[in-house]
Amino acid sequence: MDELNFEGYTCPVPIRPTDTVLLGHGSGGTLSRDLLNRLFLPELGRAAPRLLDDSAVVAIGDQRFAITTDSHVVSPLFFPGGDIGRLAICGTVNDLAMVGAQPVALTCGFVIEEGLSFELLQRVVASMKAAAQEAGVYIAAGDTKVVQKGGADQLFINTSGIGTIPDGIDISGARAHAGDVIIVSGTLGDHGIAVLSAREGLGFETKLESDVAPLNDLVQAMIGAGGIHVLRDPTRGGLATSLVEISEQSNVTIEIAEQVLPVKPAVKAACEMLGFDPLYIANEGKLVAFVKESAADRVLDVMKKTKYGEQAVVIGRVIGSGKSPAKQSCGQVRLKTAIGGTRLVDMLPGEMLPRIC
Amino acid sequence: MDELNFEGYTCPVPIRPTDTVLLGHGSGGTLSRDLLNRLFLPELGRAAPRLLDDSAVVAIGDQRFAITTDSHVVSPLFFPGGDIGRLAICGTVNDLAMVGAQPVALTCGFVIEEGLSFELLQRVVASMKAAAQEAGVYIAAGDTKVVQKGGADQLFINTSGIGTIPDGIDISGARAHAGDVIIVSGTLGDHGIAVLSAREGLGFETKLESDVAPLNDLVQAMIGAGGIHVLRDPTRGGLATSLVEISEQSNVTIEIAEQVLPVKPAVKAACEMLGFDPLYIANEGKLVAFVKESAADRVLDVMKKTKYGEQAVVIGRVIGSGKSPAKQSCGQVRLKTAIGGTRLVDMLPGEMLPRIC
Repeated sequence: MDELNFEGYTCPVPIRPTDTVLLGHGSGGTLSRDLLNRLFLPELGRAAPRLLDDSAVVAIGDQRFAITTDSHVVSPLFFPGGDIGRLAICGTVNDLAMVGAQPVALTCGFVIEEGLSFELLQRVVASMKAAAQEAGVYIAAGDTKVVQKGGADQLFINTSGIGTIPDGIDISGARAHAGDVIIVSGTLGDHGIAVLSAREGLGFETKLESDVAPLNDLVQAMIGAGGIHVLRDPTRGGLATSLVEISEQSNVTIEIAEQVLPVKPAVKAACEMLGFDPLYIANEGKLVAFVKESAADRVLDVMKKTKYGEQAVVIGRVIGSGKSPAKQSCGQVRLKTAIGGTRLVDMLPGEMLPRIC
Repeated sequence: MDELNFEGYTCPVPIRPTDTVLLGHGSGGTLSRDLLNRLFLPELGRAAPRLLDDSAVVAIGDQRFAITTDSHVVSPLFFPGGDIGRLAICGTVNDLAMVGAQPVALTCGFVIEEGLSFELLQRVVASMKAAAQEAGVYIAAGDTKVVQKGGADQLFINTSGIGTIPDGIDISGARAHAGDVIIVSGTLGDHGIAVLSAREGLGFETKLESDVAPLNDLVQAMIGAGGIHVLRDPTRGGLATSLVEISEQSNVTIEIAEQVLPVKPAVKAACEMLGFDPLYIANEGKLVAFVKESAADRVLDVMKKTKYGEQAVVIGRVIGSGKSPAKQSCGQVRLKTAIGGTRLVDMLPGEMLPRIC
């Protein structure tokens, strides 16, 4: 299928400009990108080459630091397998890990709706503590704001973080090379479907649990094995959006195989029932890695020995590089379907599951 | 009045424990402290000695860093003299500056209510850009979440920041000494009253403007003059709360003179009309400094030559140290009133002006 001609293709879901912010602008997909390109980058942007990585990289003296921020607005606050507190810690720890950084300190900013019960807040904070201990990070600074009843939906938590990047580590979405092997660390879509089932009270028969977990130990083990070019945690927008971003950053063509994508039967069933594609569902304890071909077996072995990488599997490859920039937004990620066809994979166009993280 | 006996005093406004979070828990005063002591510190606390400073101080290798976070929920988003964007940048720049740090990078996390107009968001972001340029900082990383209509009140912005603390700088609320001269950089209460007037449409005849401004240049100039022991920006809870915090951290007794407190006539009039005390009103472009006696004149001279320190004035002194910890929460800050009496100054007990920052 490599000789497929994409010349005539256009993006399948053109986004109309709007005058107001839509839910989809927070999706992590195309509308989020639109907001970034229309507003935030022209006004506030700098450090363009690494723009789309999970953390910014800042040099202070001889030391490189990773810096990242995430606001968490997940609803409901508690869901099978996790809660907003664990999510807030893991989300930021993982963003730091995805550029190879070792987390140093986190900050937490709480926005609380008046009337929230202390008991609930206590459970969230205890969960943050447990997650921070698991990840080996600490919270250096915090802030609390309270808004009147109805001014916010229960509780939002911003977590920012800083980590140090050891010398010699250079991991970025811009570093994918032709020939790289693409590995995911485990099953796809668990988090999004778990939150959705808790929110809508869907009551699936099988137990669906979020995968929310800190991946910094997994990443350290992988770095020890060598050959890591790209790491990303496919949160909002799912694996598909992460792969499209990487293909654009590195200007490469990616091919993945549908048959080998790891999806739990319960998640698959829920997706079929609800009309979702697991490729676009958020994960909070998974990563996708682009690894030098010669190191791939070694990295996979190491991953399988860790708690959060046991089910790691190769899902595809970088099959070429150097597509013209004009065609970057469509057609650089291809999915070999189970029946032998090829499907183009684009970013999540709008919003599928709002307030998933 | 120094021989006044405080033995029999109890706190004037005992705070009853509640089962739910109140607006006052976000006030920066006693209820905020209660939340910190009951929940956040036991679970997440570390680095106790500097606990109450505006930034945490973290050492990485030989370099000390200041780290801070603030969520901004001010209502309305635009007010005379500023807006949530300028506030978000200046608040974090100032927190870094208050431990003598030079800001390196900020992060911004937006929580946006679905339906917010792009035009409004654009104005906020443009204001952030202008404030960041004025302060000489840049925004290294950002995040955007969108919640459904009614899930948040228009727009919240978290700003976290990191700065480097040069060798030899040791500025903390724990460093006040007997004899220190206390200086404020300008008039008190401008921000809180400006936001309130905009929110309530009070239509005062005189123009009231927020003082929201980045103070890092002012602080650098002061540090150059030497002898700076303590810096703090009296935001939520006002100057009174800052002074009580410092008196507790350093275990000292402070005396300030009501007659010399700089308050604009319009702010004074508004406070009299509304029953507020300017000592408890938030400022966003002011600092209070505790300076070694021998350096005080020099520091004051330097401050008066800067844009945001022109109206700097000495307001009092540290008159003693070493009160027993049991009595710390009451009676360590005294106000010499205009008619010659002495009033005890306590922290803001509950909430006077919600969503002021």
